[in-house]
Amino acid sequence: MTRKELIGNIRKKKSFLCIGLDSDLNKIPHFLMEENDPVFEFNKQIIDATHDLAIAYKPNMAFYESGGIAGWKSLQKTIDYLQNFEDVFIIADAKRGDIGNTSRHYARAFFEHFKADALTVAPYMGKDSIEPFLEFENKWVILLALTSNQGAFDFQYIQNRESGKKVFEEIIETSKQWAGPDKMMYVVGATKAEMLSRIRKIAPEHFLLVPGIGAQGGSLEEVAKHGMNKDCGLIVNSSRGIIFASKDHDFAEQAREKASELQQKMEKLLM
Amino acid sequence: MTRKELIGNIRKKKSFLCIGLDSDLNKIPHFLMEENDPVFEFNKQIIDATHDLAIAYKPNMAFYESGGIAGWKSLQKTIDYLQNFEDVFIIADAKRGDIGNTSRHYARAFFEHFKADALTVAPYMGKDSIEPFLEFENKWVILLALTSNQGAFDFQYIQNRESGKKVFEEIIETSKQWAGPDKMMYVVGATKAEMLSRIRKIAPEHFLLVPGIGAQGGSLEEVAKHGMNKDCGLIVNSSRGIIFASKDHDFAEQAREKASELQQKMEKLLM
Repeated sequence: MTRKELIGNIRKKKSFLCIGLDSDLNKIPHFLMEENDPVFEFNKQIIDATHDLAIAYKPNMAFYESGGIAGWKSLQKTIDYLQNFEDVFIIADAKRGDIGNTSRHYARAFFEHFKADALTVAPYMGKDSIEPFLEFENKWVILLALTSNQGAFDFQYIQNRESGKKVFEEIIETSKQWAGPDKMMYVVGATKAEMLSRIRKIAPEHFLLVPGIGAQGGSLEEVAKHGMNKDCGLIVNSSRGIIFASKDHDFAEQAREKASELQQKMEKLLM
Repeated sequence: MTRKELIGNIRKKKSFLCIGLDSDLNKIPHFLMEENDPVFEFNKQIIDATHDLAIAYKPNMAFYESGGIAGWKSLQKTIDYLQNFEDVFIIADAKRGDIGNTSRHYARAFFEHFKADALTVAPYMGKDSIEPFLEFENKWVILLALTSNQGAFDFQYIQNRESGKKVFEEIIETSKQWAGPDKMMYVVGATKAEMLSRIRKIAPEHFLLVPGIGAQGGSLEEVAKHGMNKDCGLIVNSSRGIIFASKDHDFAEQAREKASELQQKMEKLLM
């Protein structure tokens, strides 16, 4: 998907909502266990109930990998199903990254095999670990910059003796030379809304993928205040708050309800 | 596998060799394509020919993921096959890492489902992204500290204004408080042999997994000189230099030849 198409979908749906498909087999409604592929059936019903409200879906690889081969099959079917919706941006949340030769294989796995639009990538190994992901047309790298967990304080805030910048700022400064805002985005945790302003100064045009709304405690209004740019520039993710809104037969309906609440707030923030 | 067992295997085999199973479908001998599962057949023959010379095998996830479901099946069969050898340490080279809830699923995938002994983990998200991997008895975290690629210079060498230490040193200093040398190892690229001395001062007892011997240009003697401790403390990996030594019918024999050359050098260095 191109940047122009992504922005078009945000305008059309009046939403910058991403739904995180953290579809834990042990947390999905129990009655789905009768299905041949409970996780796919769960995802399908969530997608059917919400695709007019969300501009992106983000399957979280860990929840599929922990199921082994069966998990990978559910993932494949889910991403294949998402291909039916032209106005949906598919983010494989995999946080991969390795030396060039290896990253090239990860790129193939997620961009050619699974046909995701974007992949979350870990920055620690630097430029040659990211470049193979940038070679695919209309595919995106979403680089971890600042995360929303407690452990973010361990290394991401280390201040560079030479430049005075923090590591997460160095990562954005440096990596924005590798690809422009048409191919690169950054992960910025919502629990650090005040940091969004600093990041916006470094990367005014890039989209930011913001996890941590809902279960992780971030505020949507704060995120929009500090992070929005003229093209919106935000993709805000909610996972558990939407997909596990109910564990009963009305789970898809309740997911839609929660997604709709967020979409309506977003519509106001986009005005 | 316990630390004691690992050290016992090093003494028994007079080797600290790890063979990297970067088993690229496009690089394995062509005649194997007739097999039902060419990648597994390739791995099996490599393992059969080398398991008395190597103390560890390291399947690199990317090369299996790029094959989709078929790739994951080859991986599963390979790890299952490795279980037959009690004196072999199985490292899943996956470089995972995410918020706690997600890391827990990755831990299950690699420690419960695939039954690997160790997993390579990316440090960027800090303590709570690593802890779920440390909860499994006799399973290991191998944390990325200093890598052997060019991009290592982008962020790993940033010097902390407060402590004067570089980021990779901070990662080792901080993380060694999370787990001792019986559960944690570090990845340290062989092309930076002089850095091994600095790392040995910070972590005198930890095992170091050293990639970058062979194709990536590192010297085994330099690594041993700077990195060895009283328990050996090193696992040195070679991938392409061994597994792709020949692309003909003698590929397993040639792999053994290359592995044997390294084992003999290691035997001298262990004296």
